[in-house]
Amino acid sequence: MTEKGRLVSSRRLYDGKVLALDLDEVEEPGGVRATREVVRHRGSVACLAVHDDGRVVLISQYRHAVASFVFEIPAGRLDPGESPETGAARELEEEVGLRPARMEKLLELYPTPGFCDEVIHLFRASGLTSVPPRPEADERIEVSTPTLAETRAMMARGQLRDGKTLLALLLENERRTEATR
Amino acid sequence: MTEKGRLVSSRRLYDGKVLALDLDEVEEPGGVRATREVVRHRGSVACLAVHDDGRVVLISQYRHAVASFVFEIPAGRLDPGESPETGAARELEEEVGLRPARMEKLLELYPTPGFCDEVIHLFRASGLTSVPPRPEADERIEVSTPTLAETRAMMARGQLRDGKTLLALLLENERRTEATR
Repeated sequence: MTEKGRLVSSRRLYDGKVLALDLDEVEEPGGVRATREVVRHRGSVACLAVHDDGRVVLISQYRHAVASFVFEIPAGRLDPGESPETGAARELEEEVGLRPARMEKLLELYPTPGFCDEVIHLFRASGLTSVPPRPEADERIEVSTPTLAETRAMMARGQLRDGKTLLALLLENERRTEATR
Repeated sequence: MTEKGRLVSSRRLYDGKVLALDLDEVEEPGGVRATREVVRHRGSVACLAVHDDGRVVLISQYRHAVASFVFEIPAGRLDPGESPETGAARELEEEVGLRPARMEKLLELYPTPGFCDEVIHLFRASGLTSVPPRPEADERIEVSTPTLAETRAMMARGQLRDGKTLLALLLENERRTEATR
């Protein structure tokens, strides 16, 4: 189904650094007329970085929105005009100081399509070499390199909660399971 | 790490139906002082409903935020004071007219912890019996019951993009793979 809704009116309530908020009046396919609150986001990139020995890269950083430290794969917002692949490699280099020789697109996902237009472009990075990291001024990042088995134990303990990270790790687990059959 | 940041000030920029938006000044652990835009959301429930023959339940609905129809597992916002398990069963009943005999908690995830406090409580529902659905006035939902193999083909074609749905299907696939070893 490729049908689109018809935008009746749109009011920008907020235009900020990370996101904007619109209040849209829309006539959706099927004739539903609704007022929708929409968070506008320029899109994100994320990558599961896999070392030659199979270890993966997680970062832990404080996320004020959920008032806790969260384990995540390296990720960030796309820069304007940047390709997702370039953006994902840039974030990996900036946040953890790793430069990938190979980038493979895994999938594109909507984390919250009910109220936000964000798309996350998810990659797998390998052939990693070390370079100096360049974290942003408001980033304090702790890097760890667990084995995939260790990430499963973290999952079982409820320590992994970030959606894109869980998804990337399940895909990696599936890939290795298939490889050993 | 259980350390919390210190909220210096908070300003509510918008208070809406589905979400609210705060502009928070916060001193985060490690001494980072930052202004954070935070979308406040009351939390969601989602459930992968599995029929006795192994088919799963997907719904397709128009999502104005991403201007397209999106395949998703049944999901919705928690009602105030409602337990996640009750909410997930309620959404399944309202959206697709199925009542589960068994509900199993799969995990809790943050879809976008960078700027939103939403938690999705993800369940697996089974022992399904039919009841009349009660969709909300602004919901137009199309229900399908693909096999898990069919969902894999949809994934490979890029037709499945919703984060919680991809996660639930990968977990289900893993569960069945383990069961047949």
